[in-house]
Formats: sequence, C-alpha cells, structure tokens
Amino acid sequence: MGTKKKIGILGASGYTGAELVRLLLRHPKVEIVLLTADRKAGLPLGEVFPQFAPYDLPRLVSIDEVDWATAALDLVFCALPHATTQKVLKDLIAKAPDTKVVDLSADFRLEDPAAYAKWYGHDHHAPELQKEAVYGLVEVYRRDIKKARLVANPGCYTSCAQLPLIPLLKAKAIEPDEIVVDAKSGVTGAGRSVKEEMLFTEVSEGFHAYGVGHHRHMSELDQEFSKAAGKPVVVSFTPHLLPMNRGLLSTIYVRGRRGKTAQDLHEILTKAYAQEAFVHVLPFGKTPQTRHVRGSNMTCIGVVADRIEGRAILVSVLDNMTKGASGQAVQNMNLMLGFAETTGIDQPAMFP
Amino acid sequence: MGTKKKIGILGASGYTGAELVRLLLRHPKVEIVLLTADRKAGLPLGEVFPQFAPYDLPRLVSIDEVDWATAALDLVFCALPHATTQKVLKDLIAKAPDTKVVDLSADFRLEDPAAYAKWYGHDHHAPELQKEAVYGLVEVYRRDIKKARLVANPGCYTSCAQLPLIPLLKAKAIEPDEIVVDAKSGVTGAGRSVKEEMLFTEVSEGFHAYGVGHHRHMSELDQEFSKAAGKPVVVSFTPHLLPMNRGLLSTIYVRGRRGKTAQDLHEILTKAYAQEAFVHVLPFGKTPQTRHVRGSNMTCIGVVADRIEGRAILVSVLDNMTKGASGQAVQNMNLMLGFAETTGIDQPAMFP
Amino acid sequence: MGTKKKIGILGASGYTGAELVRLLLRHPKVEIVLLTADRKAGLPLGEVFPQFAPYDLPRLVSIDEVDWATAALDLVFCALPHATTQKVLKDLIAKAPDTKVVDLSADFRLEDPAAYAKWYGHDHHAPELQKEAVYGLVEVYRRDIKKARLVANPGCYTSCAQLPLIPLLKAKAIEPDEIVVDAKSGVTGAGRSVKEEMLFTEVSEGFHAYGVGHHRHMSELDQEFSKAAGKPVVVSFTPHLLPMNRGLLSTIYVRGRRGKTAQDLHEILTKAYAQEAFVHVLPFGKTPQTRHVRGSNMTCIGVVADRIEGRAILVSVLDNMTKGASGQAVQNMNLMLGFAETTGIDQPAMFP
Amino acid sequence: MGTKKKIGILGASGYTGAELVRLLLRHPKVEIVLLTADRKAGLPLGEVFPQFAPYDLPRLVSIDEVDWATAALDLVFCALPHATTQKVLKDLIAKAPDTKVVDLSADFRLEDPAAYAKWYGHDHHAPELQKEAVYGLVEVYRRDIKKARLVANPGCYTSCAQLPLIPLLKAKAIEPDEIVVDAKSGVTGAGRSVKEEMLFTEVSEGFHAYGVGHHRHMSELDQEFSKAAGKPVVVSFTPHLLPMNRGLLSTIYVRGRRGKTAQDLHEILTKAYAQEAFVHVLPFGKTPQTRHVRGSNMTCIGVVADRIEGRAILVSVLDNMTKGASGQAVQNMNLMLGFAETTGIDQPAMFP
Repeated sequence: MGTKKKIGILGASGYTGAELVRLLLRHPKVEIVLLTADRKAGLPLGEVFPQFAPYDLPRLVSIDEVDWATAALDLVFCALPHATTQKVLKDLIAKAPDTKVVDLSADFRLEDPAAYAKWYGHDHHAPELQKEAVYGLVEVYRRDIKKARLVANPGCYTSCAQLPLIPLLKAKAIEPDEIVVDAKSGVTGAGRSVKEEMLFTEVSEGFHAYGVGHHRHMSELDQEFSKAAGKPVVVSFTPHLLPMNRGLLSTIYVRGRRGKTAQDLHEILTKAYAQEAFVHVLPFGKTPQTRHVRGSNMTCIGVVADRIEGRAILVSVLDNMTKGASGQAVQNMNLMLGFAETTGIDQPAMFP
Repeated sequence: MGTKKKIGILGASGYTGAELVRLLLRHPKVEIVLLTADRKAGLPLGEVFPQFAPYDLPRLVSIDEVDWATAALDLVFCALPHATTQKVLKDLIAKAPDTKVVDLSADFRLEDPAAYAKWYGHDHHAPELQKEAVYGLVEVYRRDIKKARLVANPGCYTSCAQLPLIPLLKAKAIEPDEIVVDAKSGVTGAGRSVKEEMLFTEVSEGFHAYGVGHHRHMSELDQEFSKAAGKPVVVSFTPHLLPMNRGLLSTIYVRGRRGKTAQDLHEILTKAYAQEAFVHVLPFGKTPQTRHVRGSNMTCIGVVADRIEGRAILVSVLDNMTKGASGQAVQNMNLMLGFAETTGIDQPAMFP
Repeated sequence: MGTKKKIGILGASGYTGAELVRLLLRHPKVEIVLLTADRKAGLPLGEVFPQFAPYDLPRLVSIDEVDWATAALDLVFCALPHATTQKVLKDLIAKAPDTKVVDLSADFRLEDPAAYAKWYGHDHHAPELQKEAVYGLVEVYRRDIKKARLVANPGCYTSCAQLPLIPLLKAKAIEPDEIVVDAKSGVTGAGRSVKEEMLFTEVSEGFHAYGVGHHRHMSELDQEFSKAAGKPVVVSFTPHLLPMNRGLLSTIYVRGRRGKTAQDLHEILTKAYAQEAFVHVLPFGKTPQTRHVRGSNMTCIGVVADRIEGRAILVSVLDNMTKGASGQAVQNMNLMLGFAETTGIDQPAMFP
Repeated sequence: MGTKKKIGILGASGYTGAELVRLLLRHPKVEIVLLTADRKAGLPLGEVFPQFAPYDLPRLVSIDEVDWATAALDLVFCALPHATTQKVLKDLIAKAPDTKVVDLSADFRLEDPAAYAKWYGHDHHAPELQKEAVYGLVEVYRRDIKKARLVANPGCYTSCAQLPLIPLLKAKAIEPDEIVVDAKSGVTGAGRSVKEEMLFTEVSEGFHAYGVGHHRHMSELDQEFSKAAGKPVVVSFTPHLLPMNRGLLSTIYVRGRRGKTAQDLHEILTKAYAQEAFVHVLPFGKTPQTRHVRGSNMTCIGVVADRIEGRAILVSVLDNMTKGASGQAVQNMNLMLGFAETTGIDQPAMFP
C-alpha cells in the first residue's frame, strides 16, 4: 500500500463525495486517507452512507482539524459548497503547496474576475488561485490539466452541452447566435441539501423547468463557447428536473453554417472524438438515452437532421454524478498524478 | 336515469378508454351504456381495469356485435387504433347518422387529403368524413364543435404546443420561422401497447428523445400553426419520454416580432385565455409543473424573458390523459350535447 | 351558496390539507371558508399548492387570527402536527361548542389515558376531549360518529389493517396471538416535513423498513384489535416505505381458529362488507394492487389460502391520502353533518 | 490476454446476461469470447444493450451455431429460459465435458426428481446432470462449488431468505414452523420478457403481491431450509413487486427457540458471517435498505427484537441482479476457476 498516492475528500457527506469514494475504492493507484464533513465529524462514513459500512475507510473529521502540511496529501478533491471552497482552498494551498486540488464547486470555473463578480454578486476571495486554476474539461484542456495544481471541475449541465458543441463552434460549422440548449437533469444534480422542493413527494411523477432565463451555469457556457467560437456566444438554455436520480440529457437545436448539413456536423464530432475513451458518437440519426450511461464516465452524442432545411438536432447524455462530476474529477486526477486516463473509471454503465 | 344521454366507448380496454370511464362515472348528465374491446369481449371491465370492479358498468363487447341503429347512442367516444377507426366510424355514421362522435385517434385531424396521404402513406378511407370532421381544440374551435357531428380530438403533444402558440401566431407577435418546441411526455401517452421499450425496466430511471426530426404529430402542428399564422409554418419539434405516468410539458423558444417583448407575449396570452376554464396563464416569469395538473383538465402556461434580447421562453403543461386526450374529449362532448362546458371535468389536480 | 355548510381546514399547507381541499372543492354541500397555515399565513393557497391557483379559495391565515365564535363554522378539519392539536382543539371547542371537528392527527385516537401517556411520553393535554372523542373508522363506529362532536380520524396503517382484521377478530375466526401485519406505504404518508431521509434521492429506487419493533401506530392497533377480540391482542407489525407517492398495502398472515379455513375467512369478510360503499372484497384467491385505489376512497381486500394448512394470507390496500386520511375524514364529515355517506368521495381511482 | 480464461454467456440479450457482461468486462482474469441470443443473432450486443456499444465484444450468435468442442470455453454462464436450459446444457456438457457451467435458471436447483416433477409438471430432461449439479449459494456450499462442473445459481428471493435463516435453522435457534417471509423485489427480477403487466404504466406508482400462496421459488426454500433444520420446514412466503428496478428485501418474522432472544439470533448471524466478504450483519436493532446494495454483490442483514416476547424480525437485502443473480454467478465462477472469491465483484454499491 506504501506506493499508493494519498487522497483526501473534503465534503464527503455529500453525493459527489460519495461518488468519489465509490470510484476511488476500486482505483488501484490511490488510497483515501482523509474524509471531511464538518457537521458529521467523528462519525464513520458508513453512518452517513451505509453502502460504505463494510469498507475500511477513515472516520469523518472536520476541516479545522486537518493540518495540511503534515497530512502531505498528493491530491485533494474539494466537494464543498460555494464560497466555503475559496477560503478552504486558499488556506490549503498556502500550507501545502505540493498538494494538488480538483475542485468540484463552481468557484474556480470562471476566468474573468468581472464575470465572477457579476454572476455571484461579490469579488472572488482567492483571485490569484482563480487565475491559476485550469478548467477541467479533459477533452478540451487535457494538456493544461496534466500540469495543473488546481483544476476547476466543470459543471454537469455545461459538460453535457460543451462536448457536442465545442468542436462545432471551433470548426465554425454552426451559427453561434441560434443555439438552443434544452437540458434535463436527474435529481442528484441538486446534491443532498434538504429543501422542500427536493422531497420525493414534490419531485416524483412530475416534471418542470427551473431557473428559466437566468441560471448561473450560463456564465460557464458563455465563457467556454465564446473561447471556442472566437467571439461572444450567448445561447438559450433551460434546465429541467427529471423524476429520477442520475442522468442528464441535452437536446440542442443548431443551424449549420456555410452549407454545413447535419451529416457534416456528425462527421466533425465523430472525428473530434475518435480517440476519446469517454465520448461516444452514435451512428448518424441515432440518439442516446441517459440510462445507458448510468454510473459510467461515458458521454454519448447523437446527431439528427431536423426536418427544417439546414438545421440539426443534437442529443447528448451523461451521468451527472460521474462524467458530470466525480468521474470527471477522477479523470482529472489521473492526468494530474500521471496515471492512465481511464484508470478506475472504466466501468460500463449499469442498466437496467 | 331516463333523461341521461346514452354514451358508448369504443376501445375501452386502453388507457384513454379507462380515463373516459373515470370521468364519465361522475358526469351527472350521461350514462355509459356501451363499452367495446374486441380482444377482451365478454369480460367485465373490472377484469381489465380492476379500479372499476366496484362499479356497475356494461360488460365489454366486440364492435361487430353492436347494432348501431338500435343502440341509439347519443354520442360515441372512439378510442381505437389508427386505420381501424376510419372503417368503424364510416360504418357507424352510415347506420346511425344521429349518433355524434368524438374520435380520439389521429385519423380525422388532418384536413388536407394530400397531407394525410403523405404522413400516413395511404389515401384516407373515409374522405367525406374527413371533410366533415371538426378539429376539437375547444379553445380555438368552440363554435364549430357545438354544431359538429364528428369531432377529431387533438393529440396531447399538439394541444400542449398549440394553446400557448396559437394566440401569438394569430397576433403576429412572434417570428413563425424560429420556433423550437421541446416536448416531454409521461409514458401513458404511448397507450397500453405491449412493447419491449415500454417495460418498466426500460423506461424508469432514464430519459430519452424519440422520433427526432420526423414525428407524425408534426403534421397536425403544421396544419394548425399555418392556419393561425396565415402562412406556412414549420417548427422544430422533439418529443421525449419521461419516467412517469402522466404529464406533458413543452418548453418553447420564440423570438418576438416587431418589437414584441416577452411581457407583450404574456399579455396577449393572459387576455386570450381570461375567460377560459381550462387554460391558466401564470404570472409573468413563473413556469408551471406537470404534477400540478395531474388528473385535471387544466393547461397551465408560463412566459419568461430569455436573457437573449427579443427572445422568450414559454412553458406549457397538461395531463396527457385528461386535457391531452379524454378530458378534452369530454369537454367536446359537453359542447356537442349542450351541457355546460366544465361538467364532469372540473376536478382539481391530484398532487401529491 | 347560502345553504352550504361552512368548513374550515387547519393546517392547509400540508398534504392531508391539500387532499381535503381537492375533495371538498367538488363536494356539493359544503364551502371552504377558512384555511389556516401558520408559517404561510397571508399567502393564497395557490402559492403553496399551485394546483389550486385557478380556484377561488380563502387566503391562508394563522390560527391565532381566527375568532372561533364569530367564524361560526359547521365543521373543522384539523390537520395539525401532534401536540399542537390538543391545545388548538381545546380552545376551539371551548369557544365554539357547536362547531364539529374531525381531527386527522393521532392525538385523540387512544381512549386510555395511560396508553396515551405510555406511547407519547406525557399526559394528554385535553383529557375530557379525549374521553369524548369517537374513533372515526366509519365501517366500525358509524352510529357513534353520526352523533359525535369530535371524531378522531384513524391512521392510514391502522385503517388498512383493521378493515380486514376486525370482522375476523369479532367472529373469533382467527388466532389473535399469531397475527403478522407486514405493511408498506407510499411516501405521502410522511407528510410534507422537510427531512433528509425524505429527499427524492434518498427514497426513490429503493425500499426499507422503519420503526421496526416499536412504531407508534401499534398502540392504535392494540386498542382496536383488543376491543374487537374481547381480549388483549398484540400483533407483529412492520411498516415499510415504498418509492411512490400514494398507496398502502398490508400483507397479513393469520391462522384460522376452530377449523376456519381461508375460504371461511373470505366469506366472513364478504358478508361483513356487502353493503359498504368503500370496502370491496375481491373474489377468493385474488389480491388487490394499490394503484387501483389511487385517489379513491376505496379499500380492497383479498383472501388467499396459504400453502400451510390452516393459515391464510390477507392483502388489503387503500390510498393513504384518501381512505387513509382525508377521504375518510370527509366520510366522517358526511355522517356528522347528515349528508349521504358517499357525497363528494365517490370518484373512481385514477389508473394509470 | 492469452492467459485469460475464456468465457461464454448463453442468453446475453436478457438482463442477467447484461449484468454478467457488466461485471466480467472489469474482471481481470477472464475474457468474454462467446455471446448467444437466438432471436438477436447477428447483431452486435450494443444494439440490444446500448451501454455496451463503446466496448469491444463478440457479436451475438445463435446457440445452434456454436461448436462446443472447438470453442474450448473454460466456463459458460447459462441465462436461458426454463426448459431450454436442460436441453442445451445436456448437449454442451456431452460435447465439451471440460467446460464448466454456472446455470442461472431454476432448472438444476432442486435435488429431488420428485420435487422437480411436482413443481414443474414434468420429469427433468437431464436427470444425471440434476444429480451432479451443486447448489450455488457460496456461503453454504463453498467447498462443493470449488470442485463442481455444474453449479445451479440460486434464485434471488431464495438467496435473500436463506442467508439470514440458514445459520439460525442450523443452530436450532428458531421455531421452524412459525417462519413468515414477506419478500419484495424490484422489477428486474422479472427479466426482459414483454408482458402487459410489466409495462411502466402498470408497475410504476403502485405495489402488489403476486403468486400468493403458490410461488415456484418455494420449492427451493423448502429444500434448503429442510436440509439446514434436519427436518421438513415449510414457511409462509409472499413475493411482492416494487416500483423500482433493482433491490430485494425480505422481512422475516421468527420465534426464538429454547429461550433464544433476538440478540442471541443476532450473535449467531454475526459469528456465522464474520469472515464473509459479501454478507454484512448490521449492529443489533438496525435494518438495511436496498438502495445501499444497489449494483454491489453485498447482502445486508438486520435483526430487531419484536415487541412480542420471544419473537424477532429479520430484514435482509440484496440486489436481485447482482448477489441475487449475476454477481453470485461470478462469485461461483471465481471459486470454480480458482480465482480469489471477490475478484471483479468487489465494487461498492451505487447510491444515490
């Protein structure tokens, strides 16, 4: 066990924390040595997540108890709420500059301090780290991630929209001003926070949109789409809540540019992802289902011609807990620690 | 009981048939005197739908056993599969010309014989009836329905898209060439047909689009939108399957025309439906949930400004079994038989 | 409208409150004139339960605002939490002795002050009312209910177990010491309280028992079973949580006494409920499903012979929100106010 | 890859087949070289189960195409329907006597030809193999399984009931004549067969018992319980269908014998399973949930004292697809091929 890398998870009592534990328990190159959860400090993880009761894992501690310098962690996953994150990571990196970090919050995803201030209503508390942070969508920023100390793991909605759209925007194959992203997510995307609107009775057997016209994830989309297109891109985006646990599907309406047909778009995507382990482009005309990526780190993308000349419909799916959060975080870790990219996250989806 | 109108339901072993029975059992002005179900003929309805076992209802018979002339029904609901419908109704109306009909299939929804032939791959088998049939979206065709002998009950997807869009197209308030309708339906919309892809295991805990780019309901949308706009309108439309029984939600992306803002669109809809019992327009900026119309005949519509200047997002919901099928059929019956429009279909939604 | 009885609902922001509103809105003899919800006082009910936004209903007020004497209500449904109930009803009945009350809490179900103190850990706060209260299982106590001022509406678990067992215990047809009641309930039974274990993510796609060996509802079962048997009866009872909203099913294992077979038990139940509108005994050997009573006030009971000689298995179902709570409360109201017993609660189940 | 064992899966288009593929794709010691599915022969597995489209797997073939002798498989998993199994395995073993077999059907679970004939209505078609077959509940028959050529993988219901009861019966700690097993299973237990009663609309949002009094799995329980107790044991057993995909929970009511208390029973089970990797006994008084074993090969068992003196309630859970079928089959394979028992089936549960 001596040669395994030492890993910490901050915020292990939340769902993305649990998903990290699930994946890392079978990862052959790492060992979980630290688990924090402030309100549950002192408990074994198995009391918070009974599925881990049979496993040998460290007890939950509070972040204040941790001495980052002596802990000498190789890498920390930070799954803390917004704002807390900035303070904790600033402190951690100051005290243990050799510890690498994959942050699962939204706090380090925006590059532009002004954009951050606009969407979050206050200045960033760790602007130097914000500058240093690398946006962790592996398929786009693989090279930078390999050298990064701090990686900002992308959001689930944005990953699911970016993977089909970035190559098309880069290729200038679609009109950047006519993109509609209609997104639907399972409930785990909301985390474990205890709110009336997340009760079983309020969520099951029904469906609704939320944050219509003004969802925070839009800032992340704007940033990445604009970089890909080389000009400001603003898309219509609506998130919806599905009565199910895991899975995210985006239906994306685009218009081809300069004569590009739906089949051309399909070809661009097929080529772009030919070598990717975690992006699967379906045959032209086929569209994917969320259940077929459940629990896996796979993203599936389908391209169909709309019946309106010149338009195409893209459908992309991923598991918001895995490729949309913790799986992607492990993918980032693998790059940052020099492991093969698919280590520990190559399990097939669980269906049914 | 003598003064109650005599009602028949053809295809009572399907879900829309059961929903008709549910609604009509509490309708004070009618009596169910005929229930057909060819493959279940001879059985009490309670063996096919145990929820009706405690009620006094006629046994299921096959259509061939029925003598339309002597049956002297006031009105028949026809919930038969495509194609069968045309043959049966042609025969029924020939033999019992005073019996009125509400047809829940798609067979009489298209006015244009050429459009019908194009989408269904064959000529219509009852072209004179096709000509006579009135499209049964009450909020649009109320006057014609009152005088109709044969009403073609609209589809669930199309009702949910038409109710928000028709007033806007009529008012020329939105660009007819930039409409995207992203629609999501509960599983009951597929009826009771026994197919692998409708198994619980294949549908639960997952989400997918289907019929992408080429769904038959598009023909009905094209017809009604074009009539409303006074020019050919073709929209992007994608249906999806939700892991739940009842409920249909359409997220609709539009661009205002001639300076019309989202708030202008909201005002047009609010006025258009001010007197309607079954259409409820939410306050500006709010959007509805399917669970809050479950089992009721209500349609709820929300209007929100998109963050892209000049664009708006509409969200409409209905219960695909009620306002999307059998409730609307009863609403049509009420008009055709001279009852108050809300009779028997005024129950509030069942939530949770 | 002047001749309609005036009804109040205390605790209208909970699920049983909403279910009462759903049922009473279509009840032809009553009018809802008061709705209380302390934390939501001032809001229209439609903000708390959007399904009621289209209806004309009084605004929510806090209980403290109500002047019981001048309100002159004919009947009040009390759907308040445990403990609060006793204080509020004591006050209400003191000030408005002509107002009748159906209480949906557990506070007045136990007759014996000692039993109450044992199970709830403190003396009852309104012992005279406890004495006066009539246990509201209509099929057993119909006569007393008609004359009652205060009716204690039974719990959902206990109703579902009592309806099949009471007639058998009264007939001394089963061994009272070998009864096992394995009960499974939908999530609405837990009300709208915001707890982590009731989140969608914690409840969906899984199943578990709770309160094993020591559930409070047992005291109510003990009381009623012992009265029926004429001797102390204690049963094994385990509640479980189903990943669905509505529906409660009890599987009950019994041994026939003095040679009574499963068929004898079936005959006893069939006779006992021959005239009951809301209890349906299935043919021998058939068992019911919760979905076929969804939203209705019906209880269905099946009796099957176990393969072990002399033993039988009973299965009973009801909708925990309707016959298990608010529907039964309206049934009680109908008796207390002199209406026909089925008024307003005769809607068939909604399936699918 | 040359040193990996060569594995075949017969009936790969069913759910247990898919679950085998999911588990074996990450098993480091084996390679899937044969997949059969008669009605889907010729297709890639990814068309039948899209989650496998990204993986490199053999095409589906029909069983008739396979030459068992030249295939030289090390082990075959047989996931074929009842009856077919006997014919196919007789042929396979005749032609390739060195190929080992784990059969997931019920065909080889009963030892007694007379019991088989009674429950299945005909004589066994391969009586010699029936004699040779070893019952594959690893925790009970580990030694025999290691040497077996043909293992009959136990049923999901029976595994879930046997693991808590066998040690108690062996220890003569409970009354064998007063056992009630109330079992609840997710829908995947029914396989992928296309039947009306398995449609999403018929299964979701509801709950019911089935096969009450006469379920085939009882024969398997009778056999194993009687062997453990050393005398004929017949239990009351009722299966129910849960509106969810995976998970099986048994609530078991027992009476202690010779003064044995619930805590004594807990101690017996704790000791019996102290060294087992796939059975986890919870602390006394705690009970498990199905969601915490989802996708894992774990069984969790809880023991609680009933409030009735001398009685106890046991609750056991497993994932019917994993420990209840394919995971247990791989566990058997590991023993039969000499691998460490947990290889490839040690992934933690996926929750939420």
